[in-house]
Amino acid sequence: MIKSRAAVAFAPNEPLQIVEVDVAPPKAGEVLVRIVATGVCHTDAYTLSGADSEGVFPAILGHEGGGIVEAVGEGVTSVQVGDHVIPLYTAECRECKFCKSGKTNLCSSVRATQGKGLMPDGTSRFSYNGEPIYHYMGCSTFSEYTVLPEVSLAVIPKDAPLEKVCLLGCGVTTGIGAVLNTAKVEEGATVAIFGLGGIGLAAIIGAKMAKASRIIAIDINPAKFDVARELGATDFVNPKDHAKPIQDVIVEMTDGGVDYSFECVGNVQLMRAALECAHKGWGESVIIGVAGAGQEISTRPFQLVTGRVWRGSAFGGVKGRTELPSYVEKSQKGEIPLDTFITHTMGLERINEAFDLMHEGKSIRTVIHY
Amino acid sequence: MIKSRAAVAFAPNEPLQIVEVDVAPPKAGEVLVRIVATGVCHTDAYTLSGADSEGVFPAILGHEGGGIVEAVGEGVTSVQVGDHVIPLYTAECRECKFCKSGKTNLCSSVRATQGKGLMPDGTSRFSYNGEPIYHYMGCSTFSEYTVLPEVSLAVIPKDAPLEKVCLLGCGVTTGIGAVLNTAKVEEGATVAIFGLGGIGLAAIIGAKMAKASRIIAIDINPAKFDVARELGATDFVNPKDHAKPIQDVIVEMTDGGVDYSFECVGNVQLMRAALECAHKGWGESVIIGVAGAGQEISTRPFQLVTGRVWRGSAFGGVKGRTELPSYVEKSQKGEIPLDTFITHTMGLERINEAFDLMHEGKSIRTVIHY
Repeated sequence: MIKSRAAVAFAPNEPLQIVEVDVAPPKAGEVLVRIVATGVCHTDAYTLSGADSEGVFPAILGHEGGGIVEAVGEGVTSVQVGDHVIPLYTAECRECKFCKSGKTNLCSSVRATQGKGLMPDGTSRFSYNGEPIYHYMGCSTFSEYTVLPEVSLAVIPKDAPLEKVCLLGCGVTTGIGAVLNTAKVEEGATVAIFGLGGIGLAAIIGAKMAKASRIIAIDINPAKFDVARELGATDFVNPKDHAKPIQDVIVEMTDGGVDYSFECVGNVQLMRAALECAHKGWGESVIIGVAGAGQEISTRPFQLVTGRVWRGSAFGGVKGRTELPSYVEKSQKGEIPLDTFITHTMGLERINEAFDLMHEGKSIRTVIHY
Repeated sequence: MIKSRAAVAFAPNEPLQIVEVDVAPPKAGEVLVRIVATGVCHTDAYTLSGADSEGVFPAILGHEGGGIVEAVGEGVTSVQVGDHVIPLYTAECRECKFCKSGKTNLCSSVRATQGKGLMPDGTSRFSYNGEPIYHYMGCSTFSEYTVLPEVSLAVIPKDAPLEKVCLLGCGVTTGIGAVLNTAKVEEGATVAIFGLGGIGLAAIIGAKMAKASRIIAIDINPAKFDVARELGATDFVNPKDHAKPIQDVIVEMTDGGVDYSFECVGNVQLMRAALECAHKGWGESVIIGVAGAGQEISTRPFQLVTGRVWRGSAFGGVKGRTELPSYVEKSQKGEIPLDTFITHTMGLERINEAFDLMHEGKSIRTVIHY
């Protein structure tokens, strides 16, 4: 049992509390990781708000981290003490039906227990005053020491800065991957990106990598347009500047609609707009944002019958253990400008400030340094 | 001006009236066709019911025909008098943005006027007692003589029986094409087909052509199961036999869902069920049925984010002029058993009976012989 500083969500809608928790040693197939840095993502805020149907409390949130392996449990072979790793909320076991399908990154190996805030054996490694605390998304990077299944760790080069590449653990990879892996945007295509948070900005990077001819950035906060332009967006639309539905605006701008659209907010009305601004005959729309529990998307089936395709993407369709090292490499070469995303850095004790900055739209990403 | 026997829909929800209409000669780019036989399809009934937002009256319905070219207008080069043809409600001009995209069969060349019941010049070739009668889906095969744009005719071999291959003008091609062109079902895949009307049965043929390993046929009328089995379905599900939602039944039967599902009814609840019975991570659902005006599909976005894909298909993604001749060939080789679909044949004067048989679920297709 070791002691670890952690920001604990004791109840929904309350500030996190910085306390010292107990962390049990890794069991078979598990790994103890010391987190060096972690991003704070909208999904953490979503769960903290109580809207997440899988949210359980008390829990240690955080899922966008970078760390170093401190100890390994029995039978662990793919990582060693001292390895630099990025925790994966989408595991990659390489043995389940999903991993073997070659069609998806949604590994099922630890999904059932992870969704309940537990390790694969159905228990938690965290406790506080003798009471168990739940894990979160299989990562819990808001604790300096955390335990993960071996299959939930991507080993990355040791010369990559963990306080930056931690962002590849969620938002940045999700946005880029949705463009490259899920939509497979091709050179010359037109793209619309709804919402310019971390994921939307990353999707712009992905669209630029794919050599899209036109990248339309859409947000109701025009303060986001400068960064979007810097990353490669070519057109900027603020829905508040238009009386008509935003899908109609995009369709007019593009002589019939875009080839690909991406919803990066989690707003079901915007998901519909994103689909309906896709071009008749071939336009594809990808949902990346996470909607509130119980919310539904809808449209007229005619939208699909006339050739539009509606998809979704989780972690950008990226298989973490296999593909994340190449994302890290791209960030080191400057192809993925992580610095653009990091608007704030701070220590764990100020983590509630990071949530405030995010809610106020003042940050893209705050990175917590332990 | 020639006289033609025709079944005219003078008003929604009234029986068709067999009258003699006047047919004006084909203008430039147009073709006069003598229809030899025509199927009666649910879409005709849908428009006749008044539920079709594009439905205009009085009109000559019918869009599943086979005929012979009687005369051509100025500048027509791709068809000649005497050619055997299948009218296309989805034209193929080979020149518009859609035709050139290589991504869709939804040609835009005559779409705007076709949707209003008119020829490309904005007028009608049909009249009765001096009053114009609208065209329908650019075909109007319920008239012995009809006029179509040149780009709306597929030329087929003269030795193919028009009173059978007329069915390739809509339902049969739609069902097969949705499987082969839109979903691109691969060998060994599992498939669920919702609704065993003409389109659903054709989808079974398509799934068998694609060498699907399991073809689940779903209908609330178990009388349809025998034909479905004959065509290649392997499993049969009557939703009325189950208390739980039909998507849950299919997911259980298939250890997680099917690889591909097809909605062949036009029921928005069933469209949702078809999506939700698709396998997490890769399952794709294709909407073929035509829903009532204003009706919407909905689901939780989580269904898409976890890897399901929602598509639609019109005329099976088939480019009529280019691809229909190969469908005709396949029917002549017995790979598309058209006889199975033709449960009734009758003369034009009994066409209202054909609608009754369809509504009562007693026919798959009735073919009208002129």
